[in-house]
Amino acid sequence: MSSVALSLDDVAALTRRVLLACGTSEENTGSVVDSVVAAEADGIHSHGLARLPTYAEHVLCGKIDGSATPVVTRSRAGAVMVDAACGFAHPAIDAALPVVIDTAKEAGVAAMSVRNSYNCGVVGYHVERIAQAGMLALGFVNGPSAIAPWGGKKGLFGTNPIAIGCPRADGLPLVIDQSSSVIAKSEVMVHAQKGEPIPEGWAFDADGNPTNDAAEGLKGTMAPTGGRKGANLALIIELMAAGLSGAHFGFQASSFGGNEGGPPRTGQCFIAFDPSAFGKGFVAHAGDMFEAILDQPGTRLPGDRRIASRDRTASDGVTIAQALHEKLEGYAAR
Amino acid sequence: MSSVALSLDDVAALTRRVLLACGTSEENTGSVVDSVVAAEADGIHSHGLARLPTYAEHVLCGKIDGSATPVVTRSRAGAVMVDAACGFAHPAIDAALPVVIDTAKEAGVAAMSVRNSYNCGVVGYHVERIAQAGMLALGFVNGPSAIAPWGGKKGLFGTNPIAIGCPRADGLPLVIDQSSSVIAKSEVMVHAQKGEPIPEGWAFDADGNPTNDAAEGLKGTMAPTGGRKGANLALIIELMAAGLSGAHFGFQASSFGGNEGGPPRTGQCFIAFDPSAFGKGFVAHAGDMFEAILDQPGTRLPGDRRIASRDRTASDGVTIAQALHEKLEGYAAR
Repeated sequence: MSSVALSLDDVAALTRRVLLACGTSEENTGSVVDSVVAAEADGIHSHGLARLPTYAEHVLCGKIDGSATPVVTRSRAGAVMVDAACGFAHPAIDAALPVVIDTAKEAGVAAMSVRNSYNCGVVGYHVERIAQAGMLALGFVNGPSAIAPWGGKKGLFGTNPIAIGCPRADGLPLVIDQSSSVIAKSEVMVHAQKGEPIPEGWAFDADGNPTNDAAEGLKGTMAPTGGRKGANLALIIELMAAGLSGAHFGFQASSFGGNEGGPPRTGQCFIAFDPSAFGKGFVAHAGDMFEAILDQPGTRLPGDRRIASRDRTASDGVTIAQALHEKLEGYAAR
Repeated sequence: MSSVALSLDDVAALTRRVLLACGTSEENTGSVVDSVVAAEADGIHSHGLARLPTYAEHVLCGKIDGSATPVVTRSRAGAVMVDAACGFAHPAIDAALPVVIDTAKEAGVAAMSVRNSYNCGVVGYHVERIAQAGMLALGFVNGPSAIAPWGGKKGLFGTNPIAIGCPRADGLPLVIDQSSSVIAKSEVMVHAQKGEPIPEGWAFDADGNPTNDAAEGLKGTMAPTGGRKGANLALIIELMAAGLSGAHFGFQASSFGGNEGGPPRTGQCFIAFDPSAFGKGFVAHAGDMFEAILDQPGTRLPGDRRIASRDRTASDGVTIAQALHEKLEGYAAR
């Protein structure tokens, strides 16, 4: 399979051309470009250029309003409401991020609740930026139905990630970002495309039975991590991300994949805590925990592979399939 | 095995006599009694009278300061700091609960961060009371080391529960309350006492290998639910419950069991969200999700067995082993 080498600047330029050509406004393009570049830099290709054709299609079909203007309201001392107005999630989150950071500094804790939103890419990307401002950050994000309530057969919850960003004395924040499913749905799709079986425990078929058949898994539901507890965690995240904001729950949202169904109107919730409002020496205290983890042979800190990739990609750039590159150039030339 | 039948009023009176006889102050006794009665009412006996001998021992040996006066400080518009002063967790949480609810009404969101604390019993009990005031409530609680970081062999994190309490239009709040381990450590202890093997996947031995031997499991670590993701979730909860407050992390805390090591100084964090600060119609919206879950055959809502037990126990009372009853009467007669 031929491939194309790109610097991160190339990634930014290509993403920008694709988004503008498909009708994304100048105002909204920057936020999405930054997130695509960050995903590629971190080696999270599923949320980088590989997702860009879907973004392009969704702007073209109106599933995303490329010219939407997000509305940020600080409703109370610690509460920030964001209406993404059926545009990209990234400009909405970016517009509210400085507000939520300032609000947390004032109130000690602040929550931003985003409605009428779209896939926000890598959740860790957002909590990391809040943590870079010295805040402990939690993120809850829902998506279209993929996980069944325990005992049921039909998807109601998204693969709903939870994330935390924790400031560190030196270096980048520690970031944990993980879905409520055993494995990302995109992995099952890749197996289905290749006609390969999936491992036990990844997915259930439409009758709720465990399956090794990737295509049957896609017709069914994703297995929640840890069984009943994972399904419950996905429900907690639905309530935080979509419940509070009034966004669509997983079972009400259109797909992040196909072009049908109009805007998904999913939601996000980010909570920022100013550690100095709750005590002294948070960063050093948390650092003791990270040190205790690394003191044990065989361990690593969550996110360290992502950080290593970031160092590597900054100098080496990334490589994408030529077919994807041609597809993206096609959108850019519209 | 002989047993003794008790009404919930009997449970309250017995708990009260035990706590006072062991040196708990009048001021602190009420909160603990309420929580023990609630645990028995809900059928969560591990946190009811069965735990009372440990409470009694810990007051007697000074692991709990029975006369501690918790200090509640509202440090910012949304931030409540609580110093449990090495007393019981319950009076500290009870003292701060009305403050955090009022604070959430004003600021839209409020967090209470508890340090120098002790086992707080059933986490769902606390989030339920915040939800009964119309707030969406999150709870994070850490405990002495029981779960190893993924890849490691030594426990660093507690079995750290996460909980949510969600108001409903009619009836009690929906409560999810689940540990980060596959199973409660007390279950492994019960198996060890009976000399029975434990199922695959509950625990690891001291060398980090899966074990069916309950005694070996107690020397090792508890399996996190969902493998690496469960260990990461336990770390998220450490940062929220102990990191923010400056409480002891799991690996720094003395046991909730034995009498050695002084006060455990663990922590709790509860976050209350006033849904009206983030949009309209939260309760009805969340209710649509609960209905969608119940529409599927084979499902139940989290907590419904607890609620059913509550109805039953109110009329029927509870039954405890005569040996436990004698032990408790022994403490009461000190």
